[in-house]
Amino acid sequence: MDLTSPAKGLNALFSPRSIAIVGASSEPTKTGGRPMHMLLKYGYAGAIWPINPKADVVQGLPAFASVDDLPGVPDLVLVAVPGVGAVAALEAAAAKGAGAAIVLSAGFAESGPEGAARQERLTALARETGMRILGPNCLGALSVRERAIGTFSVALENEMPKVGGVSIVSQSGNIGSAALRQLKDSGAGLARFVATGNEADLQAADALEWLATDEETSVILCCIETCRDAPRLTRALDRARAAGKPVIVLKIGTSEAGQKAAQSHTGGLAGSDRVFDAVFLRHGAVRVRSLEELVQVGAAVEAIGVRHVGTTPSAAMIAASGGFGIMMADAAAQHGVGVNPLTAATQARIRAALPLAATANPVDATAQMSASPDILETLVDAALADEANSTVCLMLALGMEIPRLRTVFTQALSRVTARHPGKTLVACLSGPSDAIAELRSFGIACFPTIDAAMGGIAALAKVEAIRAAGATALPLIPAAPLPAGSTRNEASAKAVLTDAGLTFAQEITVTSASEATDAATRIGGPVAMKVLSPDIQHKSDIGGVELGIDPSGAAAAYTRIRDAVARHAPDAAFDGVLVAPMVKGGTEMILGTVTDPIFGPAVMVGLGGVFAEIFKDTALRLAPVTEAEAAEMLRELRAYPLLDGARGRAPADKAALCAAIAALSRFAVRHAQDVAEIDINPVLVRDDGQGVLALDALIIPHQTAQQEAAQ
Amino acid sequence: MDLTSPAKGLNALFSPRSIAIVGASSEPTKTGGRPMHMLLKYGYAGAIWPINPKADVVQGLPAFASVDDLPGVPDLVLVAVPGVGAVAALEAAAAKGAGAAIVLSAGFAESGPEGAARQERLTALARETGMRILGPNCLGALSVRERAIGTFSVALENEMPKVGGVSIVSQSGNIGSAALRQLKDSGAGLARFVATGNEADLQAADALEWLATDEETSVILCCIETCRDAPRLTRALDRARAAGKPVIVLKIGTSEAGQKAAQSHTGGLAGSDRVFDAVFLRHGAVRVRSLEELVQVGAAVEAIGVRHVGTTPSAAMIAASGGFGIMMADAAAQHGVGVNPLTAATQARIRAALPLAATANPVDATAQMSASPDILETLVDAALADEANSTVCLMLALGMEIPRLRTVFTQALSRVTARHPGKTLVACLSGPSDAIAELRSFGIACFPTIDAAMGGIAALAKVEAIRAAGATALPLIPAAPLPAGSTRNEASAKAVLTDAGLTFAQEITVTSASEATDAATRIGGPVAMKVLSPDIQHKSDIGGVELGIDPSGAAAAYTRIRDAVARHAPDAAFDGVLVAPMVKGGTEMILGTVTDPIFGPAVMVGLGGVFAEIFKDTALRLAPVTEAEAAEMLRELRAYPLLDGARGRAPADKAALCAAIAALSRFAVRHAQDVAEIDINPVLVRDDGQGVLALDALIIPHQTAQQEAAQ
Repeated sequence: MDLTSPAKGLNALFSPRSIAIVGASSEPTKTGGRPMHMLLKYGYAGAIWPINPKADVVQGLPAFASVDDLPGVPDLVLVAVPGVGAVAALEAAAAKGAGAAIVLSAGFAESGPEGAARQERLTALARETGMRILGPNCLGALSVRERAIGTFSVALENEMPKVGGVSIVSQSGNIGSAALRQLKDSGAGLARFVATGNEADLQAADALEWLATDEETSVILCCIETCRDAPRLTRALDRARAAGKPVIVLKIGTSEAGQKAAQSHTGGLAGSDRVFDAVFLRHGAVRVRSLEELVQVGAAVEAIGVRHVGTTPSAAMIAASGGFGIMMADAAAQHGVGVNPLTAATQARIRAALPLAATANPVDATAQMSASPDILETLVDAALADEANSTVCLMLALGMEIPRLRTVFTQALSRVTARHPGKTLVACLSGPSDAIAELRSFGIACFPTIDAAMGGIAALAKVEAIRAAGATALPLIPAAPLPAGSTRNEASAKAVLTDAGLTFAQEITVTSASEATDAATRIGGPVAMKVLSPDIQHKSDIGGVELGIDPSGAAAAYTRIRDAVARHAPDAAFDGVLVAPMVKGGTEMILGTVTDPIFGPAVMVGLGGVFAEIFKDTALRLAPVTEAEAAEMLRELRAYPLLDGARGRAPADKAALCAAIAALSRFAVRHAQDVAEIDINPVLVRDDGQGVLALDALIIPHQTAQQEAAQ
Repeated sequence: MDLTSPAKGLNALFSPRSIAIVGASSEPTKTGGRPMHMLLKYGYAGAIWPINPKADVVQGLPAFASVDDLPGVPDLVLVAVPGVGAVAALEAAAAKGAGAAIVLSAGFAESGPEGAARQERLTALARETGMRILGPNCLGALSVRERAIGTFSVALENEMPKVGGVSIVSQSGNIGSAALRQLKDSGAGLARFVATGNEADLQAADALEWLATDEETSVILCCIETCRDAPRLTRALDRARAAGKPVIVLKIGTSEAGQKAAQSHTGGLAGSDRVFDAVFLRHGAVRVRSLEELVQVGAAVEAIGVRHVGTTPSAAMIAASGGFGIMMADAAAQHGVGVNPLTAATQARIRAALPLAATANPVDATAQMSASPDILETLVDAALADEANSTVCLMLALGMEIPRLRTVFTQALSRVTARHPGKTLVACLSGPSDAIAELRSFGIACFPTIDAAMGGIAALAKVEAIRAAGATALPLIPAAPLPAGSTRNEASAKAVLTDAGLTFAQEITVTSASEATDAATRIGGPVAMKVLSPDIQHKSDIGGVELGIDPSGAAAAYTRIRDAVARHAPDAAFDGVLVAPMVKGGTEMILGTVTDPIFGPAVMVGLGGVFAEIFKDTALRLAPVTEAEAAEMLRELRAYPLLDGARGRAPADKAALCAAIAALSRFAVRHAQDVAEIDINPVLVRDDGQGVLALDALIIPHQTAQQEAAQ
């Protein structure tokens, strides 16, 4: 298989000129019957070749005994027979030269060891022959315009989706079907649908990549629970961004984020679900939190086309009732949508049309809003022309369900949206569906609830921000092995991190009581003393830490530590004792990295100290990050005001902290092969200009690296 | 007016034997025409008396020239004529002896000073005559079973709501109408509807109180944006709870919470919207966050009737797909719904029916779930019988839209719900509506999305917890004036709070340099010194604070403070200097109270120190609270693990903190007439058994009290 082009062969999947169905059935409700039934019912224009050794005719078409008997080479082969038969049929299809196959049947990796072996055969077959395989255990694929139906989804049972620009990629067939169904309710049209199931060959990422350059697709909705191959996914996302196709992602499994067994604080705080957030952020996908949001945002992107919502969301709100206005403002606050007061000129225009209206924002247009198209048109026109907000949200409630009001609203909105082709109007209404279709045809984004509308505006602004920003060019950081012994203990970790550009307090490693006295004297004043050992993780638990020791007491403290280790951890290697100044002041932060098994190294910064675990106030990015990206990470923290000089505090040295984050992120990339997790905790951020000072460091090697080192 | 029974007269509003319509119109779309049109169309059984001096007949019934001409005393008078005419008609109706009137027309307080004067006349009229007035500027009222239609809501245009047990009280007519419409979609039935508009006489609370004892009402949905009379609202809520009628509340205006100008930290952290939370908590109402949630939860309460969901929400989840199971678990985590592993016995039962199912929780029943009623019945039966979770959530997705599956599901669910009359099954499906109605008839709570289902389970558990707990008996705390001078300065505030049971560090007020030396010597070790003045709020800004002063430097520090005050605040009264020990250690908390202008005193506890403003981690209750309630407040804090001995820390003296909260809350009640806000910040909570120590205190009197004191 040509790994540089995993989307290869998907033309046969989505635009087949012929479709063979292995296990074709005369019963239209069966897996082998439904696709054929729908191909006929909805008018697929290509050749349909049912394969069934026990029938001469299936659903009115002549049937073939086997793939070998087909009258030509099929572009696409649907396989609806169970496990063993499926493998044989696929081998025959590949031998015949088929472009792609969809294995609808189950009985593979999901069903136990035998099924898993069958699935491995499918993977190998695709690799050896170049025939692309979708599934097994999948719901299949669909191209609406071409009526190329390679699925048995019940969502198509009553009618085909409308042709449109939304494409759906889902790993789960059930979730994909539900998305299909909801898309219909949203008023949007569908281009392609694909559910990837067990992903023996084709992955969601491959479909995504193909859709990125598909002319019929204008926005891609993606439901995933896992990623099997990071480069394929990130390249697909990059290509979609380069092609100007927004990707909206529902990544499920958030609640499993904390389940990963983590050895470091950073590992505990940066679960694998948060790494997905970082992936989507870097590669320009907008993550949503529910199936409803996925579909509604996708439908809105399709409706507004080239209209703008601004990269920072804000909305002028219009409702026929003060109560709805308040609800809109509540929801806006919750979703981070700005509600800026309209300009004086805008407010004057609105008052001229409606003297009793509340005009600041939200606009309470009173029941008069629906008196005539002129009034509504003036209101919305004024709001769309207003410079204080980037978009306009109009609460229509039940208005479109009343014929007289619907006429008023439709006339007004048709004219006013045509007059503002660059700006976006968002409408809040839950039906009827033909009214929603009409509003969508004016370029209006429609959402069923106030909450959905505000969440939608926020998501549309993210889509626009991704378009505006473009891709990040990443520096090339060559991989390098970690110097031998770096992960042995705190001192060795600090040494290698110091070389990487991080700043630690001045510290001295001693291996005798008299050296301890000398070191404490050199440092001056009270010191902290900590045991150094590759075998002791929780130093204070075994009496391995002494704090506030005067130089005169250093020798005794050394001896106490030595004895405590001998008593409580007799098998631990003893590398000496670290003598360090007692440092105070500054804001306590935590820095760290995790190397995700799929996506590689990520860097984290968060509030440190005793509150780290309580508030989990952290920001995470794929590594490496620039100092500018590090500054963005800081602004994401709730604790940011502490660094920024809130409430009369001196501003902290954010520049130094950003430099440390960026340096650590490059270190994590360079040594990703060796390093699993890094904790630098705490990092004291001093007043601006005074730098940052890290007090502790822990480098956890990969299990394998660790085991090798142990040998 | 008899203030002990504000719900008086509402029988005439909701169960009128006769309805007169002032401004009755032949045009069924007009405000004066629509109610009459609907009364006729839907078959109201009482007398309908149109009043219109310009017509002999209106909509087929004989019309009367005025209220005086009516053939009898109307129970209910609808007023659809504008402002001035409305007042005259109401006066005539009251003179005639009408029981209640609904003023549908606008032109009152919402329209300026003249309208406000007219509205005051309505308030006075109701008070003088005992005729209850709903509105003005309101959408009116409705009793479904009796077809008593005193509203022009367009939500009734096509059909009447189904008769049922849900009643809706809304201040906003538009929001009420939207709730009506959504209720229909939810499959629930309606008992009564009332929208109170400007509330010249009847308030939402009065309607609530009447509905509390209404036999037709089983659950009350309440949409409010303000409360004009706290005792009326809280009494109504108490009566609803006593009558076993759950009250679900949508209180809008959350985003205005922070707008209140606050003088204290507590005031800034405890906005008026949070006081509403405390009111609902104490008086047993469940607060929801959107109109959709309001209606869905109300519909679920109606459907499940006497079934239980448990007071701590947890659910066994069943879906036909692993993906949906993951989404359910994600949503459960977000809404605080437990997902406990099913017992081994339950898992064995499920595996016996479905060998390939994932059985832990969520249960991935695979597509086999829909193979036959037997399988689904076994699955749901096992889950309902399981002891590890208090309720069961079944994802039906599109299942009910496919006739064959619908039959399978309906048969199974009918039998299994009958077998478990005490437990609740929650289903997740979005249609079709007749299928939802069928499931509801089995006692199944239906929600349209996974997110709504999990939020709904959490809300239903709150309903059950309120029922289980019953009302809190509040101690009687007699009001008492604050001792003169208590609010003058930090020392006087601490003195009165010490008397109330709070513990402050040992402190000495001095008024000369030599006294300062004596005091510092007596305290021993370094001290803090702070200026005392009723006129200086930010002491350190003007050099009024000196920290870490040795006894030998106390005299000089005193002089520095004295000079600083003379220089920077020459007009400030100088009450001396407070000498206090430098205290450290313990967890920094903030305690405080606010006296809400509507609901009275509330007490707050939160994380103190530099993070107070950042994380706003606070808990608020109406005062007074018991120590047990104070303990609940602590458990609400995200920072609770810090107090509870997380990560090897010693547990803090929570009992002492709870005693302090309770004491402060009683103080706030006793002195509510004088005290606007109290800040005790920081409060250091020591290790268990060591008590709490407050370091600073500020008592802010009410503006009026303050002004009087200044005279």
